[in-house]
Amino acid sequence: MPILQFVERDGILDLGWGHPRPGLLPVRQWQDATRAALDAYDWQALTYGHSAGPQPLVDWLAEHLGTVDALTASPGEFFVTAGASHALTLCATVLAAPGDVALVDVPTYHFALRILRDRGLRLVPVPRDDAGIDVEALGALVDRLRGDGQRIGLLYLVATFGNPTGLSVGEPRRTELVRFARAAGVTIVEDDTYRELGYEGAPPASLWSVDPGGPVVRAGSFSKTVAPGLRLGFVQAGPDVLDRLAGIGYVDSGGGLNHSVALAMATFARSGAYAEHVARVRAAYRSQRDALVDGLRAGVPGLDVPRPAGGWFLWLRLPEGMTAESLMVVAERNGVSFAGGAQFHTDPARGHDHIRLSFSLLSPAGLTDAADRLAAAIRSVAG
Amino acid sequence: MPILQFVERDGILDLGWGHPRPGLLPVRQWQDATRAALDAYDWQALTYGHSAGPQPLVDWLAEHLGTVDALTASPGEFFVTAGASHALTLCATVLAAPGDVALVDVPTYHFALRILRDRGLRLVPVPRDDAGIDVEALGALVDRLRGDGQRIGLLYLVATFGNPTGLSVGEPRRTELVRFARAAGVTIVEDDTYRELGYEGAPPASLWSVDPGGPVVRAGSFSKTVAPGLRLGFVQAGPDVLDRLAGIGYVDSGGGLNHSVALAMATFARSGAYAEHVARVRAAYRSQRDALVDGLRAGVPGLDVPRPAGGWFLWLRLPEGMTAESLMVVAERNGVSFAGGAQFHTDPARGHDHIRLSFSLLSPAGLTDAADRLAAAIRSVAG
Repeated sequence: MPILQFVERDGILDLGWGHPRPGLLPVRQWQDATRAALDAYDWQALTYGHSAGPQPLVDWLAEHLGTVDALTASPGEFFVTAGASHALTLCATVLAAPGDVALVDVPTYHFALRILRDRGLRLVPVPRDDAGIDVEALGALVDRLRGDGQRIGLLYLVATFGNPTGLSVGEPRRTELVRFARAAGVTIVEDDTYRELGYEGAPPASLWSVDPGGPVVRAGSFSKTVAPGLRLGFVQAGPDVLDRLAGIGYVDSGGGLNHSVALAMATFARSGAYAEHVARVRAAYRSQRDALVDGLRAGVPGLDVPRPAGGWFLWLRLPEGMTAESLMVVAERNGVSFAGGAQFHTDPARGHDHIRLSFSLLSPAGLTDAADRLAAAIRSVAG
Repeated sequence: MPILQFVERDGILDLGWGHPRPGLLPVRQWQDATRAALDAYDWQALTYGHSAGPQPLVDWLAEHLGTVDALTASPGEFFVTAGASHALTLCATVLAAPGDVALVDVPTYHFALRILRDRGLRLVPVPRDDAGIDVEALGALVDRLRGDGQRIGLLYLVATFGNPTGLSVGEPRRTELVRFARAAGVTIVEDDTYRELGYEGAPPASLWSVDPGGPVVRAGSFSKTVAPGLRLGFVQAGPDVLDRLAGIGYVDSGGGLNHSVALAMATFARSGAYAEHVARVRAAYRSQRDALVDGLRAGVPGLDVPRPAGGWFLWLRLPEGMTAESLMVVAERNGVSFAGGAQFHTDPARGHDHIRLSFSLLSPAGLTDAADRLAAAIRSVAG
């Protein structure tokens, strides 16, 4: 039984893992934050915490989001969770009943599809174009589903630096989508995990900020900015959803979902370590992205290699006629791997013409090497 | 927005909270463990952890349970969770479908009733006598339910130092119950939260140990032994249940459910701090129990005040004709409070003749004072 989720495979540079680069994890700074939090909060850091999360973290979150989004938040809008996937699990529990429809913007985060299925929801992909969800077609879809007697529990999407595409929903599409959601009574769950990892200036304003406390529930995470092993994230929502989250039996039973870590994070944030650390990792991931993109562009001239403006992922359309499955065999023989595109779709027939490459785990040099190996595999399969 | 779940009320000594005494929380030792874990595991403590929990904690758990239960465990039997209530939530998810029956041994942990209801289960109390569940009557109940076409998802109980009663299922009832469960195909979820807080020698062997890997799933916690704010517990189960736990979408998404804290706990345990700490709190809670029991016995001669052999709770039957509700008014006027007994039952008509007193939160002196106030209230209501 191992310590980590990651499984190293001999001789393979694996671009399939959306994991942070080990050297970027703030080991010493977290040691300091934990010590300082226990000095400051003493036994209060170790007993049952407030269900919605401890005030010091929530106060900081409310201020901080004003610096990375379009508007300042209020501390009363938050519920601290054990990460964004946990936030999605809890939101699916309080927003939807088994048998309801979950609308999903595909391709999307593959584990979100599993999490929504775990709740017994029926997944329905929404129509989209290059700027994001096609709101008019979505309206027709919602009418048709409701006409068939189906209840729509939620609409899930990663609007900013999406997983797996790296793309963001454009403006004015964001505003149109939120207005539609309010009018149609559809709750949007906005997975905003990658907001702080933008490499070309400020990220787009969140869907939440279009109509705060309205039809959007935002899920955030410290997994990509600080460290996934801390299991810490949050939900930002209106009072009705927050009340329902706090009313879950196991929440009320145990109090704050990750109390001691939440107080350590508050200390880490207030000390300035958060801002310093995120600036450092943002620069590092930008270099990693460029090493992968530049390597692939050089290695397969003529291939359309996008340069995502943020996040951890590059979504690559394979040359005409090539599938992820056929490429995988040759790529692994060449010492490189990736995630096939089909798992990010609800329809098993779709996505075989794409692969997802994570540039989060490897150093720039490792990514250059991986790009060379992958480019050679693509050239070889393209014959 | 506060930091803690606990809400202090001016002038009230509140025996309603099952929370640890602040002075018993191991603040300095936890600081040391966190620092040492980050020194030892470095970045591995901060990235995505193994779904079932990190090997160092699971290895220690397997050895340790051999010292507090009837047999040594195997590391492959564990799944680390964010506490025992979280363990129950996850077990209810993989063992039962909405609409199934959950059999419950009442009176029982009130939040467990809510957690099982959150899963959409129909709660059915099982027949019991003073030694625990009446296995023959349980068999008849199971036959009747199944005859009515109902599916039984699980049977929940706190077999050792139960909440709220402080009582344990006797022998040979444990063996009979586990044998019945195997024969009938009923999965028992054994909430074993209080095992290490026994005040009169070794606790009874667990239900798990009667037939390891068989019909019992055991849930454990570090909340009562170390600190609830850490949100750390575990499930011990056979391979089928463990596989289903690891297959939950949000588990697979994030890896270990409380990875960094789990590695700190492994370090805390291996350093000897766990054993030393648990010995210290066991002695302290024993004194606290005695202060409450002795105070009540002295204050209301003739009242039947049991002295629970373990755990945090005293389940007090009120004098004939007195209800928890009528006592509460006078008690609070006297500066003391408690948990009324009805919430620990599924039938709203039951439990009004009992109250649950927690002796975990207050010092012996505080408990003596609380016992005096409560005894005066009981005498006053009894007229």
